[in-house]
Amino acid sequence: MSQTHPSPICPVDLSAKLIQCPSVTPVEGGALVLLEDLLSDAGFTCTRVDREGIPNLYARWGGKGHAKTFGFNGHTDVVPVGDEAAWTKPPFCGEVEDGILWGRGATDMKTGVAAFAAAAVDFVRDKAPDGSVVLTITGDEEGDGDFGTVALLDWMDENDEAMSVCLVGEPTCPNHMGEMMKIGRRGSMSAWFTFTGKQGHAAYPHRANNPLPAMARLMDQLASHELDQGTDHFDPSTLAIVTMDTGNPANNVIPAKCTGAVNIRFNDTHTGQSLSDWLQTEANKVTAETGVEIDMTIKISGESFITPPGPLSDLVAKAVEAETGVSPDLSTTGGTSDARFVKAHCPVVEFGLVGKTMHQVDERIEVEQIHQLKAIYSRILADYFA
Amino acid sequence: MSQTHPSPICPVDLSAKLIQCPSVTPVEGGALVLLEDLLSDAGFTCTRVDREGIPNLYARWGGKGHAKTFGFNGHTDVVPVGDEAAWTKPPFCGEVEDGILWGRGATDMKTGVAAFAAAAVDFVRDKAPDGSVVLTITGDEEGDGDFGTVALLDWMDENDEAMSVCLVGEPTCPNHMGEMMKIGRRGSMSAWFTFTGKQGHAAYPHRANNPLPAMARLMDQLASHELDQGTDHFDPSTLAIVTMDTGNPANNVIPAKCTGAVNIRFNDTHTGQSLSDWLQTEANKVTAETGVEIDMTIKISGESFITPPGPLSDLVAKAVEAETGVSPDLSTTGGTSDARFVKAHCPVVEFGLVGKTMHQVDERIEVEQIHQLKAIYSRILADYFA
Ligand SMILES: [Zn+2]
Ligand SMILES: [Zn+2]
Repeated sequence: MSQTHPSPICPVDLSAKLIQCPSVTPVEGGALVLLEDLLSDAGFTCTRVDREGIPNLYARWGGKGHAKTFGFNGHTDVVPVGDEAAWTKPPFCGEVEDGILWGRGATDMKTGVAAFAAAAVDFVRDKAPDGSVVLTITGDEEGDGDFGTVALLDWMDENDEAMSVCLVGEPTCPNHMGEMMKIGRRGSMSAWFTFTGKQGHAAYPHRANNPLPAMARLMDQLASHELDQGTDHFDPSTLAIVTMDTGNPANNVIPAKCTGAVNIRFNDTHTGQSLSDWLQTEANKVTAETGVEIDMTIKISGESFITPPGPLSDLVAKAVEAETGVSPDLSTTGGTSDARFVKAHCPVVEFGLVGKTMHQVDERIEVEQIHQLKAIYSRILADYFA
Repeated sequence: MSQTHPSPICPVDLSAKLIQCPSVTPVEGGALVLLEDLLSDAGFTCTRVDREGIPNLYARWGGKGHAKTFGFNGHTDVVPVGDEAAWTKPPFCGEVEDGILWGRGATDMKTGVAAFAAAAVDFVRDKAPDGSVVLTITGDEEGDGDFGTVALLDWMDENDEAMSVCLVGEPTCPNHMGEMMKIGRRGSMSAWFTFTGKQGHAAYPHRANNPLPAMARLMDQLASHELDQGTDHFDPSTLAIVTMDTGNPANNVIPAKCTGAVNIRFNDTHTGQSLSDWLQTEANKVTAETGVEIDMTIKISGESFITPPGPLSDLVAKAVEAETGVSPDLSTTGGTSDARFVKAHCPVVEFGLVGKTMHQVDERIEVEQIHQLKAIYSRILADYFA
């Protein structure tokens, strides 16, 4: 009887199978079950860390609490398909045609999860490294995220599980495979304002106190302000007015109330608190000028964070360059990801494929990129445990 | 057989009967039918000038085209009752209690119509003046007004009917009976703006073109601008932002579009056209600064107008003072009224009772004021034909 060497896992097949799981947040859709089966078979200890209807999967190969534990993080949930009729192929088809894999999650990020799961399974089978490999996979990255990676990390703390370093497999390349990794993110916060004046007739504005000029004034001030000019690793902070609303259909009526909201993406020049203080100061000035009451509600989605260039970013950059010939930029741009939670746990960087079509109709990716991504993740594991 | 002198018409009874007609614009509700019956019986030639579902009544006593024709103008339509449950008495009750007449239209302006109809009927019966008395009563003053007094005036032109002077019976006194008449009005116009930029993610504002800062900027500029400092007979012009809307619930999305509107009340320093030009210039500046497209739609509800102090205002002021002891201010304040249409036809002033509760829940008026108003209108007729 000859012992057959198990064949390597194809990350494209695995991606396709994951895309066929309709796991729109917060639905599990079969995606985590599929991964748990694969990882359990490969000798990973798997634990479903479901919280408040959110499915999460923790998988560890090797001893618990090993000082050399390489972690991956990703998500299997996807954003809604939007206008299904506008898709060229069914959004959950997971079909490959002419070297392109189609479907929701093809870039963000069932392919990333498939690539690191395939790399991890092959690596532990082939090399049995002296250390551990941990996969933290959530079903709520696209939603509120309150019970996703956060729950996994909490559960890990409670159970003395840990990662020494972590690589998040989100798509990070704007246009070409390999061109960008992320070593941090700007912080993100929103502020909602309610402006309360006094209703009246447009013909008698002096008897009313119109809240709308106060909103126009404050919003103009906020949008015109230069928050900073950027720092070593960060772009300048930005503020975007995202909505202003009144809902007054009567053009002869001055309304009593209106509302507005801004979203701020900020670098390490600021904190959520320092920006909240600034917003409050600006609102107070407008109240002093106009007599319009301004109530403010703040939500800080994440502070800015950075894993400064060092061993982890070097490890990843070297592997990317070896497999693609491209030396990745170390960036802190883009929207939030779960790296902001992982940061409190261990050094974290993000690297994944080209995210051009993410969240769009006809999300899709070249299969060649998926193979490259698995190769990069495999090389990172090999180098880390070398 | 003794001939009985017909008893004078009680303007409070007539007001109450009119209030009991639920004539919310554009519903006739029985109000014009009631008036037509009364006026026909008194020898007026009545013509219903209904247009596009809007009921209007023209009534003339005396010869057509008489050089001495005193005109009254008013409306029997009323604004909706609003929250009916909030009313102390049913809004169409027309009930008198403790000297107060209650109901929708008690100030604006079934009482005004009742007072001038009662005064006119008594006057022509008792005095048979050498001249004519004309009543133009519309069922669409509170609505768009496109087929109300305008239709009556058009019909008059076509049929060689005319008024030498006209008194509009709208409520004109802010707090005390007799204190104010109106000899003109500011103009009124609205402008609606649509701001079109480019949608995007709040994390990548440089890839989007946010229309909201353009709206904040333009609205702040418009609201901050001093249009003028007032003129001899006019208050300063005013601009009120009446709404700004986006309807974007996603605080991570920069929307493509937003809308805003302003309402301007302007004196004889401006015209609708000069203000439209100014608005367009300001919008163009913001477009040049921001790249945001701004579409503007203008509606000029009325140009400013004035019947300069003279014989007509003297006639009315003298009668008001004789009956109330108060010398009325000659004002041009307040919202639009159908006087703006009558102005093109003949000299026009407005005088009526205290309008404090107009358009409100619990609209009501002291019956004493209604009697005073009839007495004033009667005296005006007597003096005019003396
Ligand atoms: Zn993602
Ligand atoms: Zn009125």
